[in-house]
Amino acid sequence: MTRRGPQAVPDLVARARAGEAAAVARLITLVEDASPLLREVMAALNPHTGHAHVLGVTGPPGVGKSTSTNALVAGMRRAGKRVGVLAIDPSSPFSGGALLGDRVRMGDHALDKDVYIRSMGARGHLGGLAWSTPQAVRVLDAAGCDVVVVETVGVGQSEVEVAGLADTTLVLLAPGMGDGIQAAKAGILEVGDLYVVNKADREGAERTRRELRTMLSLGERNEGAWRPPVLMTVASTGEGIDGLLGEVDRHAAWLEQAGELARRRTLRARREVEAIALAALRERWSGTDGGDDLVEVLAARVAAGETDPYAAADRLLDRGGD
Amino acid sequence: MTRRGPQAVPDLVARARAGEAAAVARLITLVEDASPLLREVMAALNPHTGHAHVLGVTGPPGVGKSTSTNALVAGMRRAGKRVGVLAIDPSSPFSGGALLGDRVRMGDHALDKDVYIRSMGARGHLGGLAWSTPQAVRVLDAAGCDVVVVETVGVGQSEVEVAGLADTTLVLLAPGMGDGIQAAKAGILEVGDLYVVNKADREGAERTRRELRTMLSLGERNEGAWRPPVLMTVASTGEGIDGLLGEVDRHAAWLEQAGELARRRTLRARREVEAIALAALRERWSGTDGGDDLVEVLAARVAAGETDPYAAADRLLDRGGD
Repeated sequence: MTRRGPQAVPDLVARARAGEAAAVARLITLVEDASPLLREVMAALNPHTGHAHVLGVTGPPGVGKSTSTNALVAGMRRAGKRVGVLAIDPSSPFSGGALLGDRVRMGDHALDKDVYIRSMGARGHLGGLAWSTPQAVRVLDAAGCDVVVVETVGVGQSEVEVAGLADTTLVLLAPGMGDGIQAAKAGILEVGDLYVVNKADREGAERTRRELRTMLSLGERNEGAWRPPVLMTVASTGEGIDGLLGEVDRHAAWLEQAGELARRRTLRARREVEAIALAALRERWSGTDGGDDLVEVLAARVAAGETDPYAAADRLLDRGGD
Repeated sequence: MTRRGPQAVPDLVARARAGEAAAVARLITLVEDASPLLREVMAALNPHTGHAHVLGVTGPPGVGKSTSTNALVAGMRRAGKRVGVLAIDPSSPFSGGALLGDRVRMGDHALDKDVYIRSMGARGHLGGLAWSTPQAVRVLDAAGCDVVVVETVGVGQSEVEVAGLADTTLVLLAPGMGDGIQAAKAGILEVGDLYVVNKADREGAERTRRELRTMLSLGERNEGAWRPPVLMTVASTGEGIDGLLGEVDRHAAWLEQAGELARRRTLRARREVEAIALAALRERWSGTDGGDDLVEVLAARVAAGETDPYAAADRLLDRGGD
């Protein structure tokens, strides 16, 4: 409904680059709405991206991700950095957003003009978060953020996804979250660059750290590889946050030096390009671009047992080549 | 490495249809390996599918999903039904499987020849679970299962996915899992056909049921729509399981009567066909089918700021049309 705003794209992009919060917000809304204007937006933003360090913050529910993000942002602000925060809530694909407003989540920074905060849901349309998150990161990057924090709720798949699009992935845990097998099952031992036992003033924190260290040490690493440290924080009081930020910087330096930054960013671009291409194909297949809904016709035939899914996929691919 | 087995596909399919567990297992392995033989397998299975009722079982970690599945399977077996169980673990995309063996998870039924049990991880390759799960369901369906139970670990996205491929989705909760907002955030209020408060012998069970009922009653429903009941079980003792199975049957009858079964199965087929087509395109784009890795070339250019992701996607789509 708000697909065409009052401003032309070049003007909007110029204002976003000048740090105007309303213009940044508008561009991210275009991403959320999957606006046809995005093609022009991304082409205009492109020369101005690549500066921001993307920090993924993830972990199971209840470990204090929002509080930690809040404390990290405070520390980054003290260091004079401009910060963008994307709070991703993949758990609400139908309603399309978090229940709590951005201001509630990030109360300390709601009025700071050098902090952009935005919640995004997975609206389910098109390619979901794999499609929208990198583009929103791109907007914040071009708008001059030194750091973009991508906070993801949830366990499982979403952690892997945040790891896929971050330069540095921070995995949060808290004492008493269950035994080591649970942690391993959640896949978190494979995705973290930094591990944090938050709520470190609680009973069992030291044990959780020890267990985590042991499990991490089991993984094989090549010489020169990054060894993920395990840190302790009490995000609600800010304890340990400066040390954590120091480790984030150390990891950023390692990424550059080891050539890993380019590798990760290429991987991220790969997923982004694929997601955009796949979304375009989905539109073509389902007739959203004006044709008939071929997928629906084929799906009904598969459901009725009249054709098999591979034969139906072949038909779709024929249209893909129109 | 075991892409070509000793048996030809028609023989394997015939043996799976005759209920031979080893043949069923082999076919699901072909799905997990994304074998090129699947095209032939699915064409052969297709006429024999559509019989099984697909029951999705989901809920946050710790609510007793495996215990509940175990108890449900026991009840179905008492009713003389053949049962297939797919335990999906999307949290382990890299290692490709659950840490606990199938026998440990489902100890009671490990030796029952009318129960097929299989754990599947999201191997990350191709379309992941959206690609593999429906095909594994198809194998169990064709093998004569009356019910296929798809158990999914996790919160968030994975619940939505299991809802997408089940005829009936069962959402499990337990007392004291956190307040209502948490439940709403997890998206579970939108996906369940049946809700179960498991561990109902624990303190707070009645309150959890009341809260759940209140929240469910807030959603608008048309006349004739299914109203999700909220049941109480103690899966470890079997308490409430027969009542739950009765509700599953009642929902199955409603699906037929309301025309909803065909709608859901068409939606499921739609996702399956799309996932197969997208996986084929990914192979084409990345050169897995013998060409060069065009995505990698384009991704490197995007990461270097030389081109924008939409322009890169256009290039991919050109190849899609080869």
